[in-house]
Amino acid sequence: MVKRALMRLPGRIFKKRGMNTVNHKIRIGIYGYGNLGRGVELAVSQNSDMELAAVFTRRAPDSVQLLTAGVPVYSAQDVEQYKDMVDVMILCGGSATDLPNQTPRLASLFHVVDSFDTHARIPEHFAAVDAAAKLGGTVALISCGWDPGLFSLNRLVAGAVLPEGRDYTFWGKGISQGHSDAIRRIQGVQDAKQYTIPVEAAMDAVRRGEMPELSTRQKHIRECFVVAAPGADCAAIEAEIKTMPNYFADYDTIVHFVSQEELNEKHGGMPHGGFVIRSGKTASGSHHIVEYSLKLDSNPEFTGSVLTAYARAVARLAQEGASGCKTVFDIAPAYLSPKSGEELRASLL
Amino acid sequence: MVKRALMRLPGRIFKKRGMNTVNHKIRIGIYGYGNLGRGVELAVSQNSDMELAAVFTRRAPDSVQLLTAGVPVYSAQDVEQYKDMVDVMILCGGSATDLPNQTPRLASLFHVVDSFDTHARIPEHFAAVDAAAKLGGTVALISCGWDPGLFSLNRLVAGAVLPEGRDYTFWGKGISQGHSDAIRRIQGVQDAKQYTIPVEAAMDAVRRGEMPELSTRQKHIRECFVVAAPGADCAAIEAEIKTMPNYFADYDTIVHFVSQEELNEKHGGMPHGGFVIRSGKTASGSHHIVEYSLKLDSNPEFTGSVLTAYARAVARLAQEGASGCKTVFDIAPAYLSPKSGEELRASLL
Repeated sequence: MVKRALMRLPGRIFKKRGMNTVNHKIRIGIYGYGNLGRGVELAVSQNSDMELAAVFTRRAPDSVQLLTAGVPVYSAQDVEQYKDMVDVMILCGGSATDLPNQTPRLASLFHVVDSFDTHARIPEHFAAVDAAAKLGGTVALISCGWDPGLFSLNRLVAGAVLPEGRDYTFWGKGISQGHSDAIRRIQGVQDAKQYTIPVEAAMDAVRRGEMPELSTRQKHIRECFVVAAPGADCAAIEAEIKTMPNYFADYDTIVHFVSQEELNEKHGGMPHGGFVIRSGKTASGSHHIVEYSLKLDSNPEFTGSVLTAYARAVARLAQEGASGCKTVFDIAPAYLSPKSGEELRASLL
Repeated sequence: MVKRALMRLPGRIFKKRGMNTVNHKIRIGIYGYGNLGRGVELAVSQNSDMELAAVFTRRAPDSVQLLTAGVPVYSAQDVEQYKDMVDVMILCGGSATDLPNQTPRLASLFHVVDSFDTHARIPEHFAAVDAAAKLGGTVALISCGWDPGLFSLNRLVAGAVLPEGRDYTFWGKGISQGHSDAIRRIQGVQDAKQYTIPVEAAMDAVRRGEMPELSTRQKHIRECFVVAAPGADCAAIEAEIKTMPNYFADYDTIVHFVSQEELNEKHGGMPHGGFVIRSGKTASGSHHIVEYSLKLDSNPEFTGSVLTAYARAVARLAQEGASGCKTVFDIAPAYLSPKSGEELRASLL
């Protein structure tokens, strides 16, 4: 297994497979070319130790136009043929139906990274991917991105340093795809965008060290920009949004009706972000606040950048002969950087 | 080497050394019992998988009163005799003269953690400690705490995710021991405390994504609370502070003269904190801000808590047979937590 993993890694001579070249760059594959796939593509272009080897799509490959010149697009169903072209495959499908199948299947063939974000189902996803990766002798990193991902990392570290305390995670201000979709399914709605907004007063109470018990309603506001179809009943739409169980009923929800032009112009981006705050006490009673926050112009581009940095770590772990499923908790930070240990200690410590 | 390391680890039977007990807790030693040593002691008391085994001091052991009942205090010069009592020794001396000697010497005997914070001398300290730890078959983690330490970790991760961007580190609001000491050395000064204060306007410009070039003066203000000796010339003291090279001359410095009572009452704590901000762009031009901040009632207690969490990681690495010098960059986050990988994935990912 170790031998096989090593053979497929950057900087090695691929004689046996007819690729008689020394390739010093990490060859990244993108599996699924939507917003997140394009985010990964942009991130790879910023990392000189990486190159985009191929993109795999379920659409007709000819119909897909990449941002990067000279990179082949292949059909997702033929992916097995390209095993030796890709060092790390970054899976850019959705968590609901794509990744539960794709990640275990591809982990048997490739070193992989995914962004599986259904928190409650992570243990079963981990088990399925771990079994496949161990069989395949590959390294598979799941649930990467910012939440799960960088936020999880900060929850872990702050909780280990301050074992007596409380974690608070706030999301936003940002577009929630799921909530926007839910509004679009309402009769009479032509288009919609929904912003999740953290409640400043709640964050300030947490930052003051008050350790409040916060209800769903006290943590986030939901603000909706809705384009009504011609002749639709706006009052009925607003009522249906505000009483929608799970999505809106437990929140203070604000609904604005706007034109399609205004929606496109002012709400066309995919900003997001959030805050992880640990409020804790040392044994003397001294109080400490650890806060981590993200303010992102583009959620998929930033998420793609996180996946790409972790793909570097996966390539290195594979080079060391590791196999099995990993999460951000298992990755020593130095593996994320192209710099050597010496450079890191001299410049960043 | 591996065998030796394993023999000294928690949960093992110490038959050969006459300690015929199963010890499931990580036995922590504290070397140097000042503010930081007491911070470590408080932190150990909050972690049920650890126990304080012994404290080592250069003072007369009888003169040292611990916070924890029943823990022995030994003379630092006898430390070698207690090799088998301690799983991880946390070194709580200063970076100027203590740690450059103590860490290599103790790393030849113990698994160790230190908080060496002279950034420019980290490479040479690393080399000396690495040589000693490899000879001793021990794990030695250096330059742990919050800066260097958690701040370094955040600089590394944010820089790996956003390779095109800039880092900004702001310190404070908090007491700077070095600057307070510098004021106390001025003739006519009876006592003093100095606060380092980040300039809000500079932080806000960074947070807006402006990526400003900031001078020393633009980043921090220095605010001094000074107790003048009876009959001292306050104007002369103020002038000497404000023009002191390296410490104050490059900053906007505010000097207040107060009574000893007021200094003790209002400025007796050791608060500190700071901010690490990465401002970066993905290749489309989208802008992203990653911010990490600490607000600490007690700098030594929080630093002690960080050292203690990393002592757990050192114990685990030692158990795996590792040796040599490490920094926070080399530690997979999961090693910091007492929870299992399964628990971490289910509860924090």
